[in-house]
Amino acid sequence: MPVLSDTQRAWLTDSYASELVHAAEQAADAARAIIKPLFRSKLVASAKTDGSPVTIADKRAELEMRTVLASLYPDFGILGEEYGLDRPGASLRWVLDPIDGTRSFITGRPIFGTLIALMDEGVPVLGIIDQPITGERWIGLKGRPTQYTGSLGGEVGTRKVALLSQAEMSCTAPDMIASADFSNWQNLSDSVRRVSWGGDCYAYGLLSLGQVDIVAEGDLKVWDWAAIQPIVEGAGGAVVDWAGNTPQETGDGRILAVGDEALLPKILRILNA
Amino acid sequence: MPVLSDTQRAWLTDSYASELVHAAEQAADAARAIIKPLFRSKLVASAKTDGSPVTIADKRAELEMRTVLASLYPDFGILGEEYGLDRPGASLRWVLDPIDGTRSFITGRPIFGTLIALMDEGVPVLGIIDQPITGERWIGLKGRPTQYTGSLGGEVGTRKVALLSQAEMSCTAPDMIASADFSNWQNLSDSVRRVSWGGDCYAYGLLSLGQVDIVAEGDLKVWDWAAIQPIVEGAGGAVVDWAGNTPQETGDGRILAVGDEALLPKILRILNA
Repeated sequence: MPVLSDTQRAWLTDSYASELVHAAEQAADAARAIIKPLFRSKLVASAKTDGSPVTIADKRAELEMRTVLASLYPDFGILGEEYGLDRPGASLRWVLDPIDGTRSFITGRPIFGTLIALMDEGVPVLGIIDQPITGERWIGLKGRPTQYTGSLGGEVGTRKVALLSQAEMSCTAPDMIASADFSNWQNLSDSVRRVSWGGDCYAYGLLSLGQVDIVAEGDLKVWDWAAIQPIVEGAGGAVVDWAGNTPQETGDGRILAVGDEALLPKILRILNA
Repeated sequence: MPVLSDTQRAWLTDSYASELVHAAEQAADAARAIIKPLFRSKLVASAKTDGSPVTIADKRAELEMRTVLASLYPDFGILGEEYGLDRPGASLRWVLDPIDGTRSFITGRPIFGTLIALMDEGVPVLGIIDQPITGERWIGLKGRPTQYTGSLGGEVGTRKVALLSQAEMSCTAPDMIASADFSNWQNLSDSVRRVSWGGDCYAYGLLSLGQVDIVAEGDLKVWDWAAIQPIVEGAGGAVVDWAGNTPQETGDGRILAVGDEALLPKILRILNA
């Protein structure tokens, strides 16, 4: 774990942390109110130049979250998938992905999520995964136990897994894995009990509930993994890049989350063979 | 459409159809009551000889559905994934899959389903997809409009798609597609707008709500597709095998569902190139 900066130490007081969580929850509530009525409407997805989908809900929800957070913390930076970076010099930065899992949203599956992170000089210190349709919400705070609220069942806490062959692995889609990595990824998938598909951020939420043991994916941007990291860590797991290091905004987007850190060395050997 | 047998004509009266739907719903309710409390518990999945997963919920729910249906219709046959076939000579047969989407169930995703079909001499005439966690239920009756109930949004009716390149395609997992078929399947996936993963029977429910346009999968058993067929047809779509024929219990398990039948010829050409 990196040495904490002064600002990191400061926000770690309970009252400051609570205040920040309250702000992030207000943003999540605002996004939810926009996203929920648009779910399963007959939307036409527009295409971005990079080919990934974006919907009306995506854009409106990000604008609303930006408004909420900027009014509460005018000095913080804000980075969002849709509308870029405001106040790049700020050491504290909100990082937003209004709909992580656009494929799930567009096809009516309630397993996408709104992601809200707070990064302190590049280190995620707060993360929210919000599922607007099921009403589930995960809240992670660096150094504190993750909280989960929702009516679908489950308790926070990753699962201990004695053998890799007993692990449940998840991946959103095979096309997230680069061709050069596919053979190693396939070897990992052949070593686990089972691979399930789909889920985006929701799979990391399920890992935090001990339902999934490994998520190994590529092509993740900082707004995809920043919120996830404190949630998974606060549930007993770990999030690293495929080299086994702390994920960095400048990294290559290959992310590995495990519920049981004891599995890490073996998984990393397979992924880097 | 095949010519209807005498029994098929008989059950098509409104009162008989309503009575059968009521029975099937009682079975779905009974399965739901068993499955829901076991969702996201820390179950250990036992392995069947064919490698597919089965859980406590699966077995208990099927036994309970068998009890409900056998008490109401003692002369009907019952075929279930877990406990085989009773009364093989009966022309009317319930066909049950207590948890279609065991991967989703085991990993805590609320997108599996309980499947209940009634087949008349091999033709599905009634189908239910029940999602015990979200409370969604699809009911299909041969020759009648599909009904959907649930609080997640959406309306019954498949989507018209002018071009294959605009279609949303879904598949539960890449390993469902046999190696010999993979190249053709991949060509289809390259021709559509986007492929989303996971979902099992739920994907066919979403197709019936116009959220998904194509599901192309392999390795489906009769209990996987029998309930789906009247639901998709009653929403405006079609379910065929990869040769374009009506699915048969003796078929090879490759199933294609489309929301817009106008796409069928093009899709079948690609899948059979």
